[in-house]
Amino acid sequence: MNVEIINIGDELLIGQVVNTNCSYMSKALNNAGIDVGYITVVGDNYKAIEQAVTAALHRADAVLITGGLGPTKDDVTKNCLNSMFGGRLTENKEVSLHVEKIFLARNLPYTATNRSQAMVPDCCRIIFNPTGTAPGMIFHKDGKLVISLPGVPFEMETMMPKAVETILNHFKPQTVIHRTLLVSGIGESFLSDRLEEFEKKLSRQNVAAFSLAYLPDAGMIKLRLTAKGGDREQVSKKTDELFDELAEEIKQFVVSKDDKNLAQMIGQRLKAAGKTVCTAESCTGGNIAHLITLNDGASAYFKGSCVAYSNEIKHNVLKVKEQTLKEFHAVSRQVAAEMAENALKIFDTDYCIATTGLAGPDSDGTDTEIGTVYIAVAAKDGKTTVIKNCYKTVRSNFIDRTSNAALFEMWKKLSAPQP
Amino acid sequence: MNVEIINIGDELLIGQVVNTNCSYMSKALNNAGIDVGYITVVGDNYKAIEQAVTAALHRADAVLITGGLGPTKDDVTKNCLNSMFGGRLTENKEVSLHVEKIFLARNLPYTATNRSQAMVPDCCRIIFNPTGTAPGMIFHKDGKLVISLPGVPFEMETMMPKAVETILNHFKPQTVIHRTLLVSGIGESFLSDRLEEFEKKLSRQNVAAFSLAYLPDAGMIKLRLTAKGGDREQVSKKTDELFDELAEEIKQFVVSKDDKNLAQMIGQRLKAAGKTVCTAESCTGGNIAHLITLNDGASAYFKGSCVAYSNEIKHNVLKVKEQTLKEFHAVSRQVAAEMAENALKIFDTDYCIATTGLAGPDSDGTDTEIGTVYIAVAAKDGKTTVIKNCYKTVRSNFIDRTSNAALFEMWKKLSAPQP
Repeated sequence: MNVEIINIGDELLIGQVVNTNCSYMSKALNNAGIDVGYITVVGDNYKAIEQAVTAALHRADAVLITGGLGPTKDDVTKNCLNSMFGGRLTENKEVSLHVEKIFLARNLPYTATNRSQAMVPDCCRIIFNPTGTAPGMIFHKDGKLVISLPGVPFEMETMMPKAVETILNHFKPQTVIHRTLLVSGIGESFLSDRLEEFEKKLSRQNVAAFSLAYLPDAGMIKLRLTAKGGDREQVSKKTDELFDELAEEIKQFVVSKDDKNLAQMIGQRLKAAGKTVCTAESCTGGNIAHLITLNDGASAYFKGSCVAYSNEIKHNVLKVKEQTLKEFHAVSRQVAAEMAENALKIFDTDYCIATTGLAGPDSDGTDTEIGTVYIAVAAKDGKTTVIKNCYKTVRSNFIDRTSNAALFEMWKKLSAPQP
Repeated sequence: MNVEIINIGDELLIGQVVNTNCSYMSKALNNAGIDVGYITVVGDNYKAIEQAVTAALHRADAVLITGGLGPTKDDVTKNCLNSMFGGRLTENKEVSLHVEKIFLARNLPYTATNRSQAMVPDCCRIIFNPTGTAPGMIFHKDGKLVISLPGVPFEMETMMPKAVETILNHFKPQTVIHRTLLVSGIGESFLSDRLEEFEKKLSRQNVAAFSLAYLPDAGMIKLRLTAKGGDREQVSKKTDELFDELAEEIKQFVVSKDDKNLAQMIGQRLKAAGKTVCTAESCTGGNIAHLITLNDGASAYFKGSCVAYSNEIKHNVLKVKEQTLKEFHAVSRQVAAEMAENALKIFDTDYCIATTGLAGPDSDGTDTEIGTVYIAVAAKDGKTTVIKNCYKTVRSNFIDRTSNAALFEMWKKLSAPQP
């Protein structure tokens, strides 16, 4: 069984908005064992939508569509699907009441434009949209399924479980199993050389088709093992076996075996050990704190952060000595270490991650090379470690790479044998 | 002239990676006046790649491809294109020297796997990759262009200018002009009602085809006016006229006329006024500081931040009174105001943005509703303003919406007539 995704929206074609819907949907489908074979993005254009849906239905068993369901004139998806499936737009009482309620609750009038959201093709079933005004729609044709959802990410996300359930009930999907290793400290090509024998072994398996993919991400690599086809129980067992073998083969580089990111791994370890962390950030500007606090339950181990962007704040708030700032400059091993050690005391935590660097594009007036960064990790009971890196890249990538490298240093400290 | 994008990678089909390449590329192409009509995502699969490239070449004049150029076994794009265009893989001396240099600089051996990166189809021209090992490739067929770039975002980004230049030199593209308004404080449907006459007027224009798109984003709306076709100079003049009319029509809601985001608008105003800002963040966990420091030159107006995730830090570092925390609890108007006013003094800035809220999913043990947030903005010379919101949504969206709303409050303070 093969599913395709079509994301509709002019904003996607001109790059004004990053298409996060398609990754969210692919993930949800894959987690349910449903293969996505193709993703298409088209504009809010009647002809283009019709053509894309027709082509997708030709190749796939089910098509999942987002976007173009708003009440404004640039939204044409509903009309297009209504015509394609030979329906008639009819007011849906349940949707109408729901939309009216939303506007009343916000003390806003229920206008004709908003009322149009309750007009639904009479040839489809509805997926209720609890958080918005546009309902989802399920169409059937020649044993195939077309499901249309709103393009607003949060609305789509609340409706995806129902869409996945609809597909699973309609088809009996083949087995698809993914297992992911997060590795660090080795380059892609060296990893590939090292795994040559393992990949040969994969190709000799006969319970399912196995493959291995390398996904580099700002200094880390995700290694994904995929199994397709065959009996679920048998394939699952074999996948676990091969995955353990893979992890063992490169064990000194493995950070996580659960498709968790570094911040999650750190959180898990800190929570288990009853320890806490804070950050003292200069060039990363709060991004490390942000990555940590994106995770549910972060308050159990994260106490806070000082973003010390200026020297004045490094001295006044983080108490870095004026002498240190003067002698070594802000971007130095010494300042990174003092930031980490002082924040550790101020925030009274067990660990502190500190960064100071020069993202650029402008120089800081010293001879520090643009891209230079120092990362320090201080521990209440132990030595402060400081590393130096240089990332010659755009600002956002500099921040991402520095944040990942800093979290990796923290993770290494948590993984080291305790003194 | 019509260009299509094909992004290749299994990781995109299973949602493990968000496809940021396609928005970056679409934006770069559109800024150069090149229309993107279709985006396709396929896996690292020889047949699927061949099929997608053939279909795209059938519809479009040029096809821009990313991904599948790595040295590992899951990367098949180069072999596929080589066969499609009837070439032979031949070692490219320039690329070979470059790749060898990269490995030497890293003190790593130049292995056979890495050497394969220098094997290039003899039927294409090369785009040099200064930051990676896989070169870009330019193929010609029947007057059409196919350009293949690496999938690593930073490598692709450094090579895009050359790709755009190649397309512009080969074709004479039609006029495409976009102008974007950032608006806030009004819902999509009300905006649409208000602009009904304006949209009718757009459809009556004859120097070009004009359209208006509504792009909601975590509490804000981007309104994009697009003109297509016609003489560039004439269309540009008319677009400016219509855009000014649009901005005037809804002026009380307009935040930016330059497709700048809120953090950039705030930075611009602060810099011009010689003023500074800091943040005191609880539930946003450093994200507001991160959004501000993503912008080049932020150090001119941003001094730092205190992320006070725990009550202890709110009291010990931000000096929020124990009495206030006890009487009103952490998620309250009073605590938000004290956080903002105290941080203003500690960081010695002209403004401070503070947030305290309950993202969930877990309750904080009080009767505070999950999703509640208080946003305070303090000014050195003026009153502290505090607003309350409630966002019942997933954690990452809660953080995004709160951050946007907080930046919007800051922007309103900067826009208000000075006392």
